[in-house]
Amino acid sequence: MKLLEERIRRDGIIREGDVLKVDSFLNHQMDIDLFQEMGKEFYRLFGEENVTKILTIESSGIGIACVAAEYFHCPVLFAKKSKTKNIAGDVYRTKVMSFTHGREYDVIVSRDFLKAEDRVLLIDDFLANGAALLGLKDLVDQSGATPVGAGIAVEKAFQPGGKRLRDAGMRVESLAKVAALHDDGTVDFC
Amino acid sequence: MKLLEERIRRDGIIREGDVLKVDSFLNHQMDIDLFQEMGKEFYRLFGEENVTKILTIESSGIGIACVAAEYFHCPVLFAKKSKTKNIAGDVYRTKVMSFTHGREYDVIVSRDFLKAEDRVLLIDDFLANGAALLGLKDLVDQSGATPVGAGIAVEKAFQPGGKRLRDAGMRVESLAKVAALHDDGTVDFC
Repeated sequence: MKLLEERIRRDGIIREGDVLKVDSFLNHQMDIDLFQEMGKEFYRLFGEENVTKILTIESSGIGIACVAAEYFHCPVLFAKKSKTKNIAGDVYRTKVMSFTHGREYDVIVSRDFLKAEDRVLLIDDFLANGAALLGLKDLVDQSGATPVGAGIAVEKAFQPGGKRLRDAGMRVESLAKVAALHDDGTVDFC
Repeated sequence: MKLLEERIRRDGIIREGDVLKVDSFLNHQMDIDLFQEMGKEFYRLFGEENVTKILTIESSGIGIACVAAEYFHCPVLFAKKSKTKNIAGDVYRTKVMSFTHGREYDVIVSRDFLKAEDRVLLIDDFLANGAALLGLKDLVDQSGATPVGAGIAVEKAFQPGGKRLRDAGMRVESLAKVAALHDDGTVDFC
């Protein structure tokens, strides 16, 4: 998606360790006009999939998912990072490794909101190692619902997440696929 | 706002300790059609305020804020719960007591995205004790920007947050003001 690539070139900031900061428009301050264009594109890609629910993970996927949902006319569900050892059987639960924070989280969704008949589109802002997306897929699999695919804003294609998800049978559509980040501040797209 | 009150009456669940669960449509699973109607109402209330930025706090305010921003045509900024003792001077920082989790959080926003010339609308899903909203107001005050008001989905009017915010000089507009929650599952609105 040209619009997102151009925005990354213009406003993305590259930091040591292959970090791409997009917090001026994507995951801290959020450009809602851009999100609408992204939502339209997700709908162009997945509109025929009869999506009944969009699933994302707190926090930075929520805005993108909610704006996209206006095109799909379906609810959004966000998986929560759980701080409590909830042993009640009312949630689906999985573990997600956060490379940013160097620790593992329990991630949960209520069983009430994922049903076997659901067709679920996963949406997130970033795909790098794939831990979050594989966790979301696991939650969907536990419920018996159908994961129709993953809509990603920015995929770091030089990290293994995309391959992992695709090898797990997921259709992955990334609006911007970063091939390389350079020290001089330039970005190559696939 | 009748639509939200009716939805709370229909789908809200009352739990011991004056807990009102609205996670089937507001803060876990999110009804985006409802959020659009809420966004329109926020715009009707605050549309003349020349809002340049909407500020919310992760996680459950983000969806409401992003959909509302489509009517205001302005970016959304979300304050982050900080896990790290970041001593760099690049963020505004405040403390917020979470009554749900029984602990205090550091909450931050980047200084890059709140400027003295900004006119900031605060949006959140719930107003009960007011800790989160007062924290957001503190962040805005630190930046020198103007807090034009707070748009709340559900205010628990029998808790002190609304009075605290209004006493601090904030204009507070709540789409549903809960006067009382009863053991038989009924809800009174103001």
